[in-house]
Amino acid sequence: MSESQFTMGQLTTLCTLLHNHKWKHVIEAEMKERGYKFTIGKVGAMDLSKIVAAVETSAKAKQVIDPNSYREIHALYHAIIEAIQGIGRGTVQFGDILRTVGLTFCIVRGEAEFAHHKDEWISVCLSGTIGAPRKGYEHDVLGFGFNHI
Amino acid sequence: MSESQFTMGQLTTLCTLLHNHKWKHVIEAEMKERGYKFTIGKVGAMDLSKIVAAVETSAKAKQVIDPNSYREIHALYHAIIEAIQGIGRGTVQFGDILRTVGLTFCIVRGEAEFAHHKDEWISVCLSGTIGAPRKGYEHDVLGFGFNHI
Amino acid sequence: MSESQFTMGQLTTLCTLLHNHKWKHVIEAEMKERGYKFTIGKVGAMDLSKIVAAVETSAKAKQVIDPNSYREIHALYHAIIEAIQGIGRGTVQFGDILRTVGLTFCIVRGEAEFAHHKDEWISVCLSGTIGAPRKGYEHDVLGFGFNHI
Amino acid sequence: MSESQFTMGQLTTLCTLLHNHKWKHVIEAEMKERGYKFTIGKVGAMDLSKIVAAVETSAKAKQVIDPNSYREIHALYHAIIEAIQGIGRGTVQFGDILRTVGLTFCIVRGEAEFAHHKDEWISVCLSGTIGAPRKGYEHDVLGFGFNHI
Amino acid sequence: MSESQFTMGQLTTLCTLLHNHKWKHVIEAEMKERGYKFTIGKVGAMDLSKIVAAVETSAKAKQVIDPNSYREIHALYHAIIEAIQGIGRGTVQFGDILRTVGLTFCIVRGEAEFAHHKDEWISVCLSGTIGAPRKGYEHDVLGFGFNHI
Amino acid sequence: MSESQFTMGQLTTLCTLLHNHKWKHVIEAEMKERGYKFTIGKVGAMDLSKIVAAVETSAKAKQVIDPNSYREIHALYHAIIEAIQGIGRGTVQFGDILRTVGLTFCIVRGEAEFAHHKDEWISVCLSGTIGAPRKGYEHDVLGFGFNHI
Ligand SMILES: [Mg+2]
Ligand SMILES: [Mg+2]
Ligand SMILES: [Mg+2]
Ligand SMILES: [Mg+2]
Ligand SMILES: [Mg+2]
Ligand SMILES: [Mg+2]
Repeated sequence: MSESQFTMGQLTTLCTLLHNHKWKHVIEAEMKERGYKFTIGKVGAMDLSKIVAAVETSAKAKQVIDPNSYREIHALYHAIIEAIQGIGRGTVQFGDILRTVGLTFCIVRGEAEFAHHKDEWISVCLSGTIGAPRKGYEHDVLGFGFNHI
Repeated sequence: MSESQFTMGQLTTLCTLLHNHKWKHVIEAEMKERGYKFTIGKVGAMDLSKIVAAVETSAKAKQVIDPNSYREIHALYHAIIEAIQGIGRGTVQFGDILRTVGLTFCIVRGEAEFAHHKDEWISVCLSGTIGAPRKGYEHDVLGFGFNHI
Repeated sequence: MSESQFTMGQLTTLCTLLHNHKWKHVIEAEMKERGYKFTIGKVGAMDLSKIVAAVETSAKAKQVIDPNSYREIHALYHAIIEAIQGIGRGTVQFGDILRTVGLTFCIVRGEAEFAHHKDEWISVCLSGTIGAPRKGYEHDVLGFGFNHI
Repeated sequence: MSESQFTMGQLTTLCTLLHNHKWKHVIEAEMKERGYKFTIGKVGAMDLSKIVAAVETSAKAKQVIDPNSYREIHALYHAIIEAIQGIGRGTVQFGDILRTVGLTFCIVRGEAEFAHHKDEWISVCLSGTIGAPRKGYEHDVLGFGFNHI
Repeated sequence: MSESQFTMGQLTTLCTLLHNHKWKHVIEAEMKERGYKFTIGKVGAMDLSKIVAAVETSAKAKQVIDPNSYREIHALYHAIIEAIQGIGRGTVQFGDILRTVGLTFCIVRGEAEFAHHKDEWISVCLSGTIGAPRKGYEHDVLGFGFNHI
Repeated sequence: MSESQFTMGQLTTLCTLLHNHKWKHVIEAEMKERGYKFTIGKVGAMDLSKIVAAVETSAKAKQVIDPNSYREIHALYHAIIEAIQGIGRGTVQFGDILRTVGLTFCIVRGEAEFAHHKDEWISVCLSGTIGAPRKGYEHDVLGFGFNHI
């Protein structure tokens, strides 16, 4: 499989996992060639609302979505919540249940073709660690969300 | 970052996403060098219990876990359910709500060090598509679970 | 269908949706004729516990329930939580996931007949908007709960 | 408030609740005047997947959505699941937990303006009864979902 | 603490856990002295709806509730679902996620005093094992529900 | 059934329910004879994270788990969350939805044999009351979690 065979969602997750690795450049080059808009960032918190805010803010600041379009904000919001459900695995809570997260995120927006229709979609990957609020007492975690925009 | 800096969980997800890509060999080599046991497989179904069964069976067949140890089966089972929660994003259901999945999975077991203690852990990644039971009417999905074993 | 054919639950929802409309009088007249006790109010917040408190307080203040009967408080409480689950759609959270609500609520208590038994039931409707904490960046939402009292 | 002040979501719920009432004509006239596409139907089942299928099929048959656009099917699907979460109140299950539903549904699609942007949105209301699989042993229930399309 | 200081809910759980133990007689004597109605039974299944049905049927057959009162059936039903949520721990599913349960249940109905009001309440305890559909590959589980009736 | 026929999980729950009763000594003697490590404590709060912290802290202070082993902390953590799911019955929240809990907890760790394999497991029982933040307006509640360690 060449890079061009990765789906938009796969590129999103690879971008998150490889952000410190040399392969990252191949992934980013592929996303740029396809005309995708994307942003990569980091956020750590026990407060869930800070995670949502950090991801949303990054997407608006980097023009991945139009910060004045509620429609686009709505599409992104639900994709973020879906990704957080993968992080939470059963309950959408961090500090409330005494766990903290340290996450790298990647948000990608672009055209994808499904059943002969080419439309815009958005995908969100959150990847990092979850655990006790004590360095080293945390394990890997990953969540992914996808929506039409 | 060299390959050796990936965490066990990151290798699990990369292995799933890159199973058709040339980079796969680098990931697999790294896992072997670390002495990880792992298995990669595919499963597609509307019936959720078939997904659970396929992943569990593969781990037993490939000796990733001891099929006669309830302790190990229990560790794997909860890691699978965690990964499925990332796939389901809010509800652990496929056919019941008229959606089907086509997944590649990777299960990795090995030693990882947390806060100066080296113990065995298991991680599960499920990656593929979810959607209507109609070719092309489905989008990317990814779930990840992690447990001590 | 005449007004008298609406169920208690339907009247509760209609009362909430029509509270600024001329039809409201027809709905309220019907509820009064049947001897229902009810209250209508408004509440807006990011803090979920304030929503629960506002609805509960209104029911007690307007004597829809006896504020000294734990039994009645318990019946109302579970009806409120059910209604909030319709608002939350998958997770019972507002500010924690960076969303705020502006709701009109109606609580109705009265006799309803099921399978030849006439008993008292309570229903709660919450209706309004949910969205980002920014005027206009929110969409319609509605939740409904029902319990024996 | 005149009819024209109802939001798209309010009209959807009113349409469902008033489908046998004389006021229905006022609601439908308002929706037509605004150029909304909509469909009203009924479905009863213990099998959750039948409920999802019936609502989806009606929207496609009545051209509320384009049956060949995965994007539109995706938008509708998530709106349906949101509405079912209001019906289920905590768990998206009917027959699995020995309860059955008898529902009237209304699906509305049209333009709505949020923060000076006019875009297309879709809303779904499910309204009826839920309870034991025995005539008369069931109570009112209502669920509502909303999505960009 | 004498037996008479146990709450109704505590007696329900003790009755379930001690059904094969000599102490059971002390618990049952206490429940009879207080005028409680109760039933004890067993059920094992992968099919969740069979568990719900078995518990419901036992309560009706032993006259713990009036089988013709929807109000009483409703109270019991929600108490059963609450208890099953303790069994399921995060998702109300057994066979769907390839696990089976073997349960002893106790349903108790009677008067309890809260804040100077004496009313009737119902409590349900389910206790036993959950695990793989293979003898010995299962662990302890317990769920408890409580409702006004 | 003699005391020695109780499972580890049953002893955990009995220890919680009988902590003020004379039978407690029989239960504790049995646990000691089997070489179980355990701790019993109390905690009351609206703030969920305080409940998690109190249970965790007690297990570490009483050496039921090694406070420096992330593996053991992870095993305990998931058992606590499982028990809280039984307390929450559908949503893992207390103060957020305006309810408070007063709980007695027991954590037991020891060897148990499943299918001819003897390994270490941990079980957690939380038992007490849940309700409005007003003395007497609360009812019985119980949650139970179990994990390999
Ligand atoms: Mg989707
Ligand atoms: Mg974990
Ligand atoms: Mg009900
Ligand atoms: Mg929305
Ligand atoms: Mg309650
Ligand atoms: Mg388990």
